[in-house]
Amino acid sequence: MKLLEDMITRYGKIGDGGVLKVDGFLNHQIDVGLVDRLGEEFYRIFGDCDITKILTVEASGIGIACLTARYFRVPVLFAKKSKTVNLSGDVYSAPVFSFTHKKNYEIVVSKEFLTAGDRVLIIDDFLAMGSSIEGLRSIIQSAGAALAGAGIVIEKAFQPGGAKLRSEGVRIESLARIAELNPKTGVVFAK
Amino acid sequence: MKLLEDMITRYGKIGDGGVLKVDGFLNHQIDVGLVDRLGEEFYRIFGDCDITKILTVEASGIGIACLTARYFRVPVLFAKKSKTVNLSGDVYSAPVFSFTHKKNYEIVVSKEFLTAGDRVLIIDDFLAMGSSIEGLRSIIQSAGAALAGAGIVIEKAFQPGGAKLRSEGVRIESLARIAELNPKTGVVFAK
Repeated sequence: MKLLEDMITRYGKIGDGGVLKVDGFLNHQIDVGLVDRLGEEFYRIFGDCDITKILTVEASGIGIACLTARYFRVPVLFAKKSKTVNLSGDVYSAPVFSFTHKKNYEIVVSKEFLTAGDRVLIIDDFLAMGSSIEGLRSIIQSAGAALAGAGIVIEKAFQPGGAKLRSEGVRIESLARIAELNPKTGVVFAK
Repeated sequence: MKLLEDMITRYGKIGDGGVLKVDGFLNHQIDVGLVDRLGEEFYRIFGDCDITKILTVEASGIGIACLTARYFRVPVLFAKKSKTVNLSGDVYSAPVFSFTHKKNYEIVVSKEFLTAGDRVLIIDDFLAMGSSIEGLRSIIQSAGAALAGAGIVIEKAFQPGGAKLRSEGVRIESLARIAELNPKTGVVFAK
């Protein structure tokens, strides 16, 4: 998506260790007009898939998921990163390894809100190693629900998550696919 | 706001220790159509305040803030609960005590995205003791920005946060104000 690639080129910053910082418009400050356009694009791609629920993980996926869900007219469900006293009853859980924070954590979803009749679209800001998508897929499977696909804003195509998930039959649609993060020459997008 | 009060009456659950669970439509599963209406209402209230930025705290404030910001056509900035490697450069920080999780944590905002020219609207899901609003206010003050007010979805009016902040001159507008959470008779709204 050209608009998104232009934003990444203009405002993205390449940090140490292959980190792409997009905290100016995506995951700290949120350019709501831009993200609304991303949501519209996800609807163009997945709008005929009979989606009943959009699933994401806190925190940076939530805004994108909500602005996308307006187009689908379905609820958002966001997995929480720890079990809190405000999550009632039984939960589905799955382990996720965060390469950003270099630690394992559990993501949890209340069983009450994900059921066998659901057709789920996963929305997330980044796809790199694929750990959080795998965790969400595991939760969807535990609920007996169907995974219609995953809409990703930025895929680091030089990392193996996207290829692995696609080889396992998951439909992954990324609005920007990055082939290389070069501290000298900048962001190179995949063809 | 009658629509919101009806949702709380119908789907809210009163838990132990004065907890009101609204995870079916507000802070785990999100009824995006409802929250979009809440955003429209915040715009009706604060639309003439020359807001330049909407500030919230991860995670449950983010969806509400994004759907509200669409009406204002301004960016959302969400304070993070810990300093991560993806937050670049200097940050403003403030301590917040979570009565839900019974622990202290720091909230941080990158200095890059909050400046002296900003007129800030705080958006959050709950107001009870007021600790997170106080933390956000402290960050706004540190940036030299102006706090235009706080738009709250659910205020627990039987707890002191709202009264304290109002007495200190903060404009607080809550869409539902709860006078009592009675495990036997249910939710009683303030007049």
